Amino acid sequence: MSININDPASAQLSAYELRQLIRHDKFNENTSGFAQGCVQGNIVILPKDWANDFLQFCQFNPKPCPLIGMSENAGDFLLPELGKDIDIRSDVPGYRLFVDGTFQQEFTDIKELWRNDLVTFVLGCSFSFEDALIADGLEIRNISENKNVPMYRTNIPCKTAGRFSGETVVSMRPMLAKDAIRAIQICSRFPSVHGAPIHFGQPELIGIDDINKPDYGDSVTIKENEVPVFWACGVTPQLVLEQTKPPFCITHSPGKMLVTDIANSTLAVL
Amino acid sequence: MSININDPASAQLSAYELRQLIRHDKFNENTSGFAQGCVQGNIVILPKDWANDFLQFCQFNPKPCPLIGMSENAGDFLLPELGKDIDIRSDVPGYRLFVDGTFQQEFTDIKELWRNDLVTFVLGCSFSFEDALIADGLEIRNISENKNVPMYRTNIPCKTAGRFSGETVVSMRPMLAKDAIRAIQICSRFPSVHGAPIHFGQPELIGIDDINKPDYGDSVTIKENEVPVFWACGVTPQLVLEQTKPPFCITHSPGKMLVTDIANSTLAVL
Repeated sequence: MSININDPASAQLSAYELRQLIRHDKFNENTSGFAQGCVQGNIVILPKDWANDFLQFCQFNPKPCPLIGMSENAGDFLLPELGKDIDIRSDVPGYRLFVDGTFQQEFTDIKELWRNDLVTFVLGCSFSFEDALIADGLEIRNISENKNVPMYRTNIPCKTAGRFSGETVVSMRPMLAKDAIRAIQICSRFPSVHGAPIHFGQPELIGIDDINKPDYGDSVTIKENEVPVFWACGVTPQLVLEQTKPPFCITHSPGKMLVTDIANSTLAVL
Repeated sequence: MSININDPASAQLSAYELRQLIRHDKFNENTSGFAQGCVQGNIVILPKDWANDFLQFCQFNPKPCPLIGMSENAGDFLLPELGKDIDIRSDVPGYRLFVDGTFQQEFTDIKELWRNDLVTFVLGCSFSFEDALIADGLEIRNISENKNVPMYRTNIPCKTAGRFSGETVVSMRPMLAKDAIRAIQICSRFPSVHGAPIHFGQPELIGIDDINKPDYGDSVTIKENEVPVFWACGVTPQLVLEQTKPPFCITHSPGKMLVTDIANSTLAVL
């Protein structure tokens, strides 16, 4: 069975159907574009004795770390509030294991790594607001150029929580000013998927030296008269985890998200 | 009796009390800062046979011409929905008469000019959203520098309605990008007082040659790292009226607004 976003049958898979394919190792690609209209989430899994600090870090930094779900008790691997029969050990297409903050290797299943003290965090992701921007007729350059969104480390400090501290990572989408204004309005309705942009215009004001050299993702074209618009990015917790160095941590692999049953539209606060 | 915005007793006058002073020729100054929290409006008074076109012009161009009230019937000079005992013939501190689009002279009372075919339009003004921005802790440069807001003719066409056509006039307030994002969010709640900005950044993209030479109002300081943020402006209908040249038209004098009993906060749509 071939699963490809350009295949209409694949594109129409429900979130549940897609998760079943992922669980049975029939799909381990990027999830962008699949199960349109459903919330996709960044994953952070930490031992219980690090989880409280991380929860507080999310509370203090809701723009880069908007929490849309977490496991009820340590050791729980089901997330029933986010979707039917979600098993976080198998239903994400790719996982990354970090030991003492250092990346070890990728997995397509973490049943062998699971422990009874692990707490799962699911954080909102920009796919949700990109859907809303496209629905309004705005062009999203990384999508129209079929690239990963460019992401940059900044000098904007996160508010420290316990052992967790670090700087904000941002994603960038170039737009005309009038479209940026509309994007600010639309994204303000979605605080749980990063919300409104946090900066536009001069990249150097937030510590970005070269807009054409993103720290993560791909460079995209910035056309004449466009300004770069910057959103807090879900890669922030990964950078913070690398710096904070918990002894054990699992995240999703970039672009390989947890696809939930929640409709993007239900995240709108207005 | 001396009425001065720096006199605490004057600053605490209610909208009704202020209108009574205006009516009895005891106040004919700018209304900025008086009756804090109350909506102030731009005035356009036209003969009935021009009023329908102008009403459609407002409908087509709600950002520069946000209608917050109009007289129920031609000849009505009371506007009970906007405040207690408002008589539009006497309760505005200054009026300007235009004949065939040409300014004739200023008046402090238009009872002698009143006709049974006149229709009054009241349009929202930026004082209301400036109040909301200040309440959120943002600095408004024209206020902190005690100047009139700088206003510019642009190349942004209004949508033509009958005989009315012309370009949009904008007001400009310089801000840091993060404050501009917040201002866009706040002003989006107030569509009836011009709503969100329509442009930021490069002035030349909307036909402004020199940001330091406004067409109306005063120049204000643009500090390092600030961007100019542009709102559609209530001077637009005055420019359009000058170009459209109705045989008879009365407006308020710039800065001398109708002070209504409506609370600014009630204009918030969210």
